[in-house]
Amino acid sequence: MTVRVGVIGVGMIGQDHIRRLTGVLAGARVVAVADVDPERARQVAGQAIGVTVHATGLDVIADDDVDAVLVASWGATHEEYVVACIQAGKPVFCEKPLAPSGEAAGRIVDAEVAAGRRLVQLGFMRRYDPGYLALREVVAGGSIGAALLVHCAHRNPTVQPHYVADMAITDTAVHEFDVVRWLLDEEITAVTVHRPRPNRHGGDVQDPLLLLLETESGAFVDLETSVNIRYGYDIRTEVVGEDGTVELGPVAPVVVRREGIQGSPIAADWQERFEKAYDVELQHWIDSVVAGTAVGPSTWDGYAAAVVSDAGLTSLHRGGRVPVALRDKPGLYLKDR
Amino acid sequence: MTVRVGVIGVGMIGQDHIRRLTGVLAGARVVAVADVDPERARQVAGQAIGVTVHATGLDVIADDDVDAVLVASWGATHEEYVVACIQAGKPVFCEKPLAPSGEAAGRIVDAEVAAGRRLVQLGFMRRYDPGYLALREVVAGGSIGAALLVHCAHRNPTVQPHYVADMAITDTAVHEFDVVRWLLDEEITAVTVHRPRPNRHGGDVQDPLLLLLETESGAFVDLETSVNIRYGYDIRTEVVGEDGTVELGPVAPVVVRREGIQGSPIAADWQERFEKAYDVELQHWIDSVVAGTAVGPSTWDGYAAAVVSDAGLTSLHRGGRVPVALRDKPGLYLKDR
Amino acid sequence: MTVRVGVIGVGMIGQDHIRRLTGVLAGARVVAVADVDPERARQVAGQAIGVTVHATGLDVIADDDVDAVLVASWGATHEEYVVACIQAGKPVFCEKPLAPSGEAAGRIVDAEVAAGRRLVQLGFMRRYDPGYLALREVVAGGSIGAALLVHCAHRNPTVQPHYVADMAITDTAVHEFDVVRWLLDEEITAVTVHRPRPNRHGGDVQDPLLLLLETESGAFVDLETSVNIRYGYDIRTEVVGEDGTVELGPVAPVVVRREGIQGSPIAADWQERFEKAYDVELQHWIDSVVAGTAVGPSTWDGYAAAVVSDAGLTSLHRGGRVPVALRDKPGLYLKDR
Amino acid sequence: MTVRVGVIGVGMIGQDHIRRLTGVLAGARVVAVADVDPERARQVAGQAIGVTVHATGLDVIADDDVDAVLVASWGATHEEYVVACIQAGKPVFCEKPLAPSGEAAGRIVDAEVAAGRRLVQLGFMRRYDPGYLALREVVAGGSIGAALLVHCAHRNPTVQPHYVADMAITDTAVHEFDVVRWLLDEEITAVTVHRPRPNRHGGDVQDPLLLLLETESGAFVDLETSVNIRYGYDIRTEVVGEDGTVELGPVAPVVVRREGIQGSPIAADWQERFEKAYDVELQHWIDSVVAGTAVGPSTWDGYAAAVVSDAGLTSLHRGGRVPVALRDKPGLYLKDR
Ligand SMILES: [Mg+2]
Ligand SMILES: [Mg+2]
Ligand SMILES: [Mg+2]
Ligand SMILES: [Mg+2]
Repeated sequence: MTVRVGVIGVGMIGQDHIRRLTGVLAGARVVAVADVDPERARQVAGQAIGVTVHATGLDVIADDDVDAVLVASWGATHEEYVVACIQAGKPVFCEKPLAPSGEAAGRIVDAEVAAGRRLVQLGFMRRYDPGYLALREVVAGGSIGAALLVHCAHRNPTVQPHYVADMAITDTAVHEFDVVRWLLDEEITAVTVHRPRPNRHGGDVQDPLLLLLETESGAFVDLETSVNIRYGYDIRTEVVGEDGTVELGPVAPVVVRREGIQGSPIAADWQERFEKAYDVELQHWIDSVVAGTAVGPSTWDGYAAAVVSDAGLTSLHRGGRVPVALRDKPGLYLKDR
Repeated sequence: MTVRVGVIGVGMIGQDHIRRLTGVLAGARVVAVADVDPERARQVAGQAIGVTVHATGLDVIADDDVDAVLVASWGATHEEYVVACIQAGKPVFCEKPLAPSGEAAGRIVDAEVAAGRRLVQLGFMRRYDPGYLALREVVAGGSIGAALLVHCAHRNPTVQPHYVADMAITDTAVHEFDVVRWLLDEEITAVTVHRPRPNRHGGDVQDPLLLLLETESGAFVDLETSVNIRYGYDIRTEVVGEDGTVELGPVAPVVVRREGIQGSPIAADWQERFEKAYDVELQHWIDSVVAGTAVGPSTWDGYAAAVVSDAGLTSLHRGGRVPVALRDKPGLYLKDR
Repeated sequence: MTVRVGVIGVGMIGQDHIRRLTGVLAGARVVAVADVDPERARQVAGQAIGVTVHATGLDVIADDDVDAVLVASWGATHEEYVVACIQAGKPVFCEKPLAPSGEAAGRIVDAEVAAGRRLVQLGFMRRYDPGYLALREVVAGGSIGAALLVHCAHRNPTVQPHYVADMAITDTAVHEFDVVRWLLDEEITAVTVHRPRPNRHGGDVQDPLLLLLETESGAFVDLETSVNIRYGYDIRTEVVGEDGTVELGPVAPVVVRREGIQGSPIAADWQERFEKAYDVELQHWIDSVVAGTAVGPSTWDGYAAAVVSDAGLTSLHRGGRVPVALRDKPGLYLKDR
Repeated sequence: MTVRVGVIGVGMIGQDHIRRLTGVLAGARVVAVADVDPERARQVAGQAIGVTVHATGLDVIADDDVDAVLVASWGATHEEYVVACIQAGKPVFCEKPLAPSGEAAGRIVDAEVAAGRRLVQLGFMRRYDPGYLALREVVAGGSIGAALLVHCAHRNPTVQPHYVADMAITDTAVHEFDVVRWLLDEEITAVTVHRPRPNRHGGDVQDPLLLLLETESGAFVDLETSVNIRYGYDIRTEVVGEDGTVELGPVAPVVVRREGIQGSPIAADWQERFEKAYDVELQHWIDSVVAGTAVGPSTWDGYAAAVVSDAGLTSLHRGGRVPVALRDKPGLYLKDR
């Protein structure tokens, strides 16, 4: 069976997923697209054969030739499309963030709980990175004891002009919100955002930030977000346990020795760093559609990340420590890990 | 277009390629198989829908529903199948080695030259490994000057019971024969095989070996092959230039600190180490079938490796330095790099 | 000239310095000792020829045969001995901490300012470590831009039974208080101490701690102190600038590949990790005594660290962010960097 | 007791040892010097108090105020001075090489055997490097099984104008001749020197070389010597055993991330790389003089290295494999390891 995928939103990430579904992964075919910019939708559709251009995302979801939907549109539109997919009983892959607020995300939880089965996979691709998978295996294996601290850094060389201050929380730190929950298998309970001396490259955006997260077990997480650090895209995570630590390892294709330096190249951007994770993530989704069961990051994971983001934004704007208040976890998500 | 692939030989590597074509890569479907063991062929075919089992490899090639052929049978049979593919005008991916001798490989060269176009891609997967690609880019870029020396180690933790002494040359060292030719963009001109103190785990097989290769430009290559070294699968390559060096970098998913040691896991076997290279290799082949042009390691590359292997076997058995005598390179292969 | 050194306090660190002065470094000789435990003083003195045992530290200082004094007694006694040395005009090397409170340390500042010249070198040995020296050179060189963040970890496998909760600030974190001031060339302005989930090995001691330091320029420092982490003694420091970062590098004598792991030994304790730093530190002191000018970490550095420690203790006990209030820096210390 | 040292030869290395004896190490004092250039001897002596300048090295040895002698003159003069020290019963530290030929070195062995006790320590400083010590401990510990192969590289960025072709054997490779003997605790039995494509920076000197050494147990050693490689001073050694490997680890004070590269500085020269080894080496010598027993690399080690060098020179000039023929090992050296 070839899964016939409809794609809503064909900007940079949407086009990248289409490339992946078409030329890299097994078992899927893109059959329909829509975009807020109809001309862009037509251009992207024209690059392949048999791709229908729809006027709206809802038309994509309603299309009988569409088995499953990939939502890569602007975050504010996710709620409408994902809820429509759930109501249509169609599997949906939704790029992060699930929704721009915990409240909106909570309504998607309601919809899926009402549907009575998981239909949503959220695009937290790091859970498919070999480094993060190995990290989690060590933490879960118990050889370093209970996790007490996590040290994270999330660095981008530059950001696009449309990057505004809040995005350091909602677009950047949100990846670590999910990673921490997943690595430690527990919820985040409070967020404090500190504002260090600003980077001269940062313009109006307060950059870097230093976030402090607390978890249910009492673990503390410090998280640096730097989005103008020029030298490369660099992701660092170390979990400190009672008996030892585990951190993401070095991944350097080569070591060059020249002119007094032994050096390795650093990834230029997230596409390069997480290329394989994106591939594995989306292949798992296609396979899950065939198997009939959603896997991976869930609506609940998206909801929790959104509520933590809300707390992060409050702390960023007002200062101080902001507790995170999650609703009770519905039974639908209890068996996930 | 979905490429319909016939697979000849469904042992370990053949089955792995079928898994890849079916569930990992885009654009291909396995439609026919054959194996020297008909029962095994039936079992493998039974795991998917619409796969025809043929009595012989030649029947696979003759099948009109087969667009392209993947040869993963025993090395001694490659010549027959690859030549038949060439004569049938069907693209063929052939696992290494191309043939068990330079003479046999030369006949495949003759067949392809007679056909007047490249139809063969040889399974030297390292050319698709990110590490080797980066290594070659640095060497070709000139920043370390001309390559004067190459240091290689090729280590397997254990080998299968059927591994006999000659395979240290024909199955193990052959990868470096190709890698050196490709990295330095020149031919190997002589081989000397030394026999160090044997590993107690090696039984009757002389292990390790220390090979010395010489190239057209006068570069020297030392190559350790160890096939019983227990600790893991480990591939090391360093190119020493006039002004600097470049070597394969560290690829460790995590670093664990426990009990006085900071350590990283080592790959268990070649499947793990070169997983991505195998994926990229075969996707390139599928894409080339669609595009109508063979790419990557050529019949000439397989021929040159086979002639170097012949020299290596002579040196292994009789000792001393054995020159490598290649025929003139046909024009068909001149544009390759 | 051979510097004749009197040593006050011959516990573990005192004995180690005597070993160093006697058998490792050039230009010094131990001629007198005193200890709160007279028997221990006699034993240590008995291991060499010509070492006088005095009843008290003040007697050591008063001894005409003593050119310079090394204070390695309990921290609470430092003020008395260092002030006496200053008043006697004798150069003094004082182990850290300078004094158990900012107030006590301030009185030593007063004494030295009254004397009108620097006589004190404080035992912040990390300033002599090749790694820290290289770190500081990169930061000062400007190639990574202004320092915005510093990430530190200070880990001990275990601590002695007499280690109590406050020592995580006064004995452990105090090293980073000094290192941060020295690396960034500015003062610390506030301290916040967080209490993560406790290590089960920690007994009554709250361990680990996560400290947040702020500096004059607005840089933020996160500092993990772990003193029961079992796996080894591990010190990590990374300075994050506007354009790049610099961190302490790997220092592993060997890499061993065995049983699926490539691993390097981790230092067992601070003596091993900072062996060379201790040697260089004390040789600099001896040389400075000969040259007639105190060098290295000053009384001011000890005072600043003590005031930051005071703030750290307040935050540890009461919680929250505690500002650091330093007196004006006397001219005597202005030229130091 | 302060050892009164006479230094013969006050060129670069001699002056460096004087600096070390005077200002770095404990327990020694330089009291006499001589040099082939009397003016240079006077200048060096003038930098300290109480240093006698002698007309000849023999006068230094005969000086009653000289307890022990350090020979750092030109290699061709070592035999005369070391034999004179032995005959005078004075401990002597002799820079490598012991003598310019196995024959000359053999005469020193004869002299010391006649004296009936070890008086000579040879300046193979690598035996005191923490990396090499750890390497040897792992090999001797047996955890990687018997040593089967050793991979070595010895790289200098540039060499002095007086460096001639033979010195690649007698000055450069000689360090590995000793290291291999010491790591594997056995003698080298044959040498083959290969001449790769020459480095364009090498002028008349054949550079690099690729040496192949064989040992009594059948282990093979490949050794690259590169003396014009520009990028830095780099020493690499990996011992390959039956069950694993051990190699010199990374020693980088810092890692800097800037402009797409994560890089560490490489040592500029041997003084920087082996600074600590030189210090420890010479302190051991001073301590051994006080203790009355020579330690460390012996006359036999110098003799064996000289005979291997002879074989290396023969292979360099005539080509081919040259066996190494050592005399029987005198009982005086049997207990050394
Ligand atoms: Mg994603
Ligand atoms: Mg292959
Ligand atoms: Mg100290
Ligand atoms: Mg030396």
